[in-house]
Amino acid sequence: MKLQSLREQALEANLEVVRRGLVLYTFGNASGIDRAEGIVAIKPSGLPYETMKPADMVLVDLNGEVVEGALRPSSDLATHLELYRAFPQIGGVVHTHSRAATSWAQARREIPCLGTTHADYFHGPVPITEALSEEEIEQGYELNTGRVITRLFAKLDPMHTPGVLVAGHAPFCWGATPAEAAHIAVVLEEIAAMALNALAINPDAESLSRHLHDKHFFRKHGPKATYGQK
Amino acid sequence: MKLQSLREQALEANLEVVRRGLVLYTFGNASGIDRAEGIVAIKPSGLPYETMKPADMVLVDLNGEVVEGALRPSSDLATHLELYRAFPQIGGVVHTHSRAATSWAQARREIPCLGTTHADYFHGPVPITEALSEEEIEQGYELNTGRVITRLFAKLDPMHTPGVLVAGHAPFCWGATPAEAAHIAVVLEEIAAMALNALAINPDAESLSRHLHDKHFFRKHGPKATYGQK
Amino acid sequence: MKLQSLREQALEANLEVVRRGLVLYTFGNASGIDRAEGIVAIKPSGLPYETMKPADMVLVDLNGEVVEGALRPSSDLATHLELYRAFPQIGGVVHTHSRAATSWAQARREIPCLGTTHADYFHGPVPITEALSEEEIEQGYELNTGRVITRLFAKLDPMHTPGVLVAGHAPFCWGATPAEAAHIAVVLEEIAAMALNALAINPDAESLSRHLHDKHFFRKHGPKATYGQK
Amino acid sequence: MKLQSLREQALEANLEVVRRGLVLYTFGNASGIDRAEGIVAIKPSGLPYETMKPADMVLVDLNGEVVEGALRPSSDLATHLELYRAFPQIGGVVHTHSRAATSWAQARREIPCLGTTHADYFHGPVPITEALSEEEIEQGYELNTGRVITRLFAKLDPMHTPGVLVAGHAPFCWGATPAEAAHIAVVLEEIAAMALNALAINPDAESLSRHLHDKHFFRKHGPKATYGQK
Repeated sequence: MKLQSLREQALEANLEVVRRGLVLYTFGNASGIDRAEGIVAIKPSGLPYETMKPADMVLVDLNGEVVEGALRPSSDLATHLELYRAFPQIGGVVHTHSRAATSWAQARREIPCLGTTHADYFHGPVPITEALSEEEIEQGYELNTGRVITRLFAKLDPMHTPGVLVAGHAPFCWGATPAEAAHIAVVLEEIAAMALNALAINPDAESLSRHLHDKHFFRKHGPKATYGQK
Repeated sequence: MKLQSLREQALEANLEVVRRGLVLYTFGNASGIDRAEGIVAIKPSGLPYETMKPADMVLVDLNGEVVEGALRPSSDLATHLELYRAFPQIGGVVHTHSRAATSWAQARREIPCLGTTHADYFHGPVPITEALSEEEIEQGYELNTGRVITRLFAKLDPMHTPGVLVAGHAPFCWGATPAEAAHIAVVLEEIAAMALNALAINPDAESLSRHLHDKHFFRKHGPKATYGQK
Repeated sequence: MKLQSLREQALEANLEVVRRGLVLYTFGNASGIDRAEGIVAIKPSGLPYETMKPADMVLVDLNGEVVEGALRPSSDLATHLELYRAFPQIGGVVHTHSRAATSWAQARREIPCLGTTHADYFHGPVPITEALSEEEIEQGYELNTGRVITRLFAKLDPMHTPGVLVAGHAPFCWGATPAEAAHIAVVLEEIAAMALNALAINPDAESLSRHLHDKHFFRKHGPKATYGQK
Repeated sequence: MKLQSLREQALEANLEVVRRGLVLYTFGNASGIDRAEGIVAIKPSGLPYETMKPADMVLVDLNGEVVEGALRPSSDLATHLELYRAFPQIGGVVHTHSRAATSWAQARREIPCLGTTHADYFHGPVPITEALSEEEIEQGYELNTGRVITRLFAKLDPMHTPGVLVAGHAPFCWGATPAEAAHIAVVLEEIAAMALNALAINPDAESLSRHLHDKHFFRKHGPKATYGQK
């Protein structure tokens, strides 16, 4: 069986978001890519997590052709592929309907950066896409969901803004690996819940100053990072 | 003992809503129907879940006559029966007092469709009944609770709107099987919690466009469904 | 050792509210009374729940004199005793700082009856006391906490309103037995959380009609009760 | 290995806030001090909790020089040290990003004392710092985070106000020991969640009267304390 490590990483990212409480039933999917091979491993559609194995991951190329796997891939496959094509730096994508982040997507509001927890991961608000047009919904809906994201990121660095809210739908997150993408999805849910609370306490709460935002983001990212054990 | 499979399905639906955290103490009940036999299996009234067995399910006919079972049936039996009589397509009914869905019922508001999680399951808002009249409360309260639901569904397809909020009370959900009815009850609780959050973030949040609503609902239901492994 | 059964019932009520998530650290206490003996068994003050035994319950008479027990009784003892003296029908008292009910106490609002979950247990709103005066706080604070409750109940039936919010403090609940008092405390927390949500959804949500309120309360209480297996 | 007991206490305080659900991933850190030795034991930066041992705690002096330990100390070390230098009564410091308390920090609001749960632990509101200036962020950010706290406490007794919200960031708590600091962090999260709820129910909820506030605080603290078993 091909690409055992990629299959395991994709499975593990799927399981991480389940363990963290972000997934009800099968409402979520994670994938990973092997850039050298040009192959994506993604969760199969509608399968229960309890018995899912690395061998159940479906391998597809960047055009969506199944390379290996007896199961049908996640119905959101085309969105994942569009992200992989547009963001060459990323190695994993995670989509969930986690409660608080999805609530922001339904409210059609970007999540302002109100605190350092947010600033540690996102260098700016968590953006929200525009709505898809009737035509984009009718034909190639999942692909167009990817495109409405990549259009929004024309002027954004996907490594500095590792996730997005799709208006009326739910978040997509990504990272250098499937594990990082899952980590972002979990943190985004926490950020979303805190921002909801903070605005309930003070509807006029102000975004973090650019200085403090930069301080926290670059304490964890880039050449001047000082966090962790390296 | 009659209808062992139906008893097991009804018990399992009762246990599923408990496992998912929708039931405090004994505040809920699930049932299933064998259409060929015209027999409903329903949870007994006020019995603890921990030791409940298939044999404890009470079998009744569609007029509410006990066919087999030493225990008294759920006090909401007459509501279940009215739903089975009015909606010939359904095979299971689940009633809970789950927190978020019940909060909407208490607020006497239908749940607008603000996102795709909702649209995947309900083809329209989650409707709310009108209040029962004094007479309907005095005589045949539980039956009239069913009737206030079926009146509301005169122009609604119960397979496209697989649940309802009874005003001032709580949700009733249904599906082709007891398992599906329980699944809907769990999803409704999530939908209700997200809608509550979304309106807290943005009181003017708009319902999903009809196009996107249709896209998601029919991706999962009907002849053009593409979700899952078949 | 005296009154082993009473000690066990009091311990079990203490543990039930812990198991149900109503108690952080030692923020709660339950007691029971043997009316024939005139003896109350109450949780000791500040002791961890994990290792608590029936023998740790402190036995006191209705004047608060310790009859048996090496430990100091709960600091809220005098409140419990005042309730036992004023409400001869009750056999158990439970006090917690459970999150949602305490939030209503802090908001200094009675909990209106917005739904049938509430009506199944309380025949009216969950009332809130007036504030204690400076003098009542200075001298005999815990006794006066009991008195501010019993004053409020001059015209209320404690078996129809089995709990109260002490303004700025937290709930006290009671019942025919310690187990019933604990059950009420758990249900009150759920009622409080739902009412908070319902008013967030609809600030003008109306209380249940008197007819529906009566229907639900008397379906479970009194000579015409039809709920459960007897 | 030096100071085994201090290492164990610091580790245990770290684990307590994890067990109580205050910590997502590695978002938190606890430390303890041996005043006689002038040595602080603190969590290492970015290490998983599951396998953390007393030997992983990093020992530093009050100037931040590592005395023993192969790992890099928590990135918030300088904040902890500033608190130990300014508050000679304290023996432990705990920092978390717990959801409700952090929401208040992001809302940039002090937490008013709305109830006795709060008054049992804080003799006044939970205060919030002013924002750091650009210069304070650029140079010595973590030290200046400590200083913005200690400046605020020029007129506050840190044993009567055992925690603070850093504006736009998150809480820091402290106590006579690492265990007490962790206990305060857990209670603060509960206080923060209740206050958020209470103001949602009643935006005009009033703070507890000074008399009742004093009664509760001094029932648990100081020479007249009557709570617990001593």
